[in-house]
Amino acid sequence: MAKSLSFKTIRWIGGIDGYVELLDQTVLPDEVTYVACRDVETLREAIRSLRVRGAPAIGVAAAMGVVLGVQDAKDPEVLFEKLERTCAYLGSSRPTAVNLFWALERMKRKAKSLAARDVGAIKQTLLGEAYAIRDEDSAMCQAIGQAGQSLIEEGAGVLTHCNAGALATAGCGTALAVMYAARERGKRFKVYADETRPLLQGARLTAWELMQAGIDVTVICDNMAAWVMKEGKIDVVITGADRVAANGDVANKIGTYGVSVLARWHDVPFYVACPSSTFDPDLGCGDEIPIEERGRDEVTHGFGRSTAPAGVGCYNPAFDVTPSALISGIITERGLIRPVSREKMREFFQDQG
Amino acid sequence: MAKSLSFKTIRWIGGIDGYVELLDQTVLPDEVTYVACRDVETLREAIRSLRVRGAPAIGVAAAMGVVLGVQDAKDPEVLFEKLERTCAYLGSSRPTAVNLFWALERMKRKAKSLAARDVGAIKQTLLGEAYAIRDEDSAMCQAIGQAGQSLIEEGAGVLTHCNAGALATAGCGTALAVMYAARERGKRFKVYADETRPLLQGARLTAWELMQAGIDVTVICDNMAAWVMKEGKIDVVITGADRVAANGDVANKIGTYGVSVLARWHDVPFYVACPSSTFDPDLGCGDEIPIEERGRDEVTHGFGRSTAPAGVGCYNPAFDVTPSALISGIITERGLIRPVSREKMREFFQDQG
Repeated sequence: MAKSLSFKTIRWIGGIDGYVELLDQTVLPDEVTYVACRDVETLREAIRSLRVRGAPAIGVAAAMGVVLGVQDAKDPEVLFEKLERTCAYLGSSRPTAVNLFWALERMKRKAKSLAARDVGAIKQTLLGEAYAIRDEDSAMCQAIGQAGQSLIEEGAGVLTHCNAGALATAGCGTALAVMYAARERGKRFKVYADETRPLLQGARLTAWELMQAGIDVTVICDNMAAWVMKEGKIDVVITGADRVAANGDVANKIGTYGVSVLARWHDVPFYVACPSSTFDPDLGCGDEIPIEERGRDEVTHGFGRSTAPAGVGCYNPAFDVTPSALISGIITERGLIRPVSREKMREFFQDQG
Repeated sequence: MAKSLSFKTIRWIGGIDGYVELLDQTVLPDEVTYVACRDVETLREAIRSLRVRGAPAIGVAAAMGVVLGVQDAKDPEVLFEKLERTCAYLGSSRPTAVNLFWALERMKRKAKSLAARDVGAIKQTLLGEAYAIRDEDSAMCQAIGQAGQSLIEEGAGVLTHCNAGALATAGCGTALAVMYAARERGKRFKVYADETRPLLQGARLTAWELMQAGIDVTVICDNMAAWVMKEGKIDVVITGADRVAANGDVANKIGTYGVSVLARWHDVPFYVACPSSTFDPDLGCGDEIPIEERGRDEVTHGFGRSTAPAGVGCYNPAFDVTPSALISGIITERGLIRPVSREKMREFFQDQG
């Protein structure tokens, strides 16, 4: 059903002098507006302010941002200077999703392998690498869908949190790819989408794209997840991930940890879906994952008007960490990691190496 | 600190021909506006639309509503007819909080004990009974505060959900009464207020009244509660209740059940505070408590603009049920019920009888 989605989350328009076009996710579903990012500053702002969000999509955006950053370099020396500066600048946009750093490193590595060539060729190759990252991401989404679709049974109730869909990737998503793949096999099931405060990616984005694909979706407030589990409405939980540590601990949108505890309490399997670009084998466990804390206005003014008293204390961590012990399996483009243990994770990484 | 609160949640203005004045809680904290309810229709609408909410406050409002309903009766026969009709009409406003039915029954019982008297005397006695319900509620709040204050230790982190404060009662609250009493003893502590979607009673109401009382309060989104527990920020959870069954199962604002599971998972004690008017010994267990389901717009248009795609599925239960096994204790005006068991509850009710 991914084929029936009518939007493009992220695109490069034109040739080497082109620009990045993003579907502005801050105004969905009320408005379907694309923003053109013709310089690195605009692109970084788009990442910071969540016009583009979702770990894989941020990686693709960053790769394209590197091309924007070196576009006007006249010689290789300047290009490499700009490359370093662009990567540092984009790398400071958001701390938690590792795909950002992964994509920037990959672009740098690619450029360094070409140091001897002329500046035009380097630029072309970097654009090609950005396209490759995008295309691989899209292919990984498809593969994740196939790897996970059997987890959704005919007639199942599926809970998801935040948006790990086409809007979070350059393809058909991660957690939602699993749903699209199950739907393509003809399975009927019901998705409960946590609205996902403060920015409502579940209500605004997940519901929007699932409806387009003809999948039955019901929005609930985050605090209703426990009750729908208690009522027996949920057979499986599937979420995305922003970073996975070497032991299988997963950082994802705030609230994911709570859902994982509730799933365990109600004996509901809890799966995470993500591409290998979201793995960070350098981090031993989830405690080492940096958690972004965002501004108070997202909580107190999230809906265009004040919803809390002026000056009230406010805490707004954007992510939390779910320990591997609460995760039934991690769905990747290479298959399902289950159970989630340091050993299984190591096997997976050695496979990759 | 309750004494420093500058508002009156509910008041009867004037004599027997007077009216009910309510603080309109739908527009707090942006506006502090009082609405006059001069007839039963207006009062019922105020209960339905949550201008007045909170189980004890609904009970007081209903009692005063009975007076409004019989105000213009010219003889006892008409009065008793109007009384029955008013009680049925107000009783259909909201199904979950038992205080509503408790207060209506008490008003009917009082009226019946006076059947022989003249119509003016009956009206005066009914107004007096409404005042008595209000005053008893206020006294119960104080007593709940005293019964529970030792549960909050110096320097503690306290989590609460929804609003069980002065705004939910005719006094200084139930769960928040415990906090006010602890503060009066000079204890310093930090309250985390779940914002409580869909209608944000935590962010709008609890934060507002705690700030007025000089209590340190931090608003979090509901889906952050698990993470703040994981971070070790919470030492005790205290919520209110809308109905307590004979075995100690508690219906309260949607999300309470999830918080109770998370508290148990993190070894955080979970207390419920409520007056005896919230007990319903006629219901054997929580499964029998009717759960109000409210309109989809509360979820999809909660803040003056659409936050979900048009036509999306939506589920909006207003309450959930926390099983007694997850409740560390129930704080009542008669003391602390701990542990919460059918036997302990029976003792409590026999005591009352």
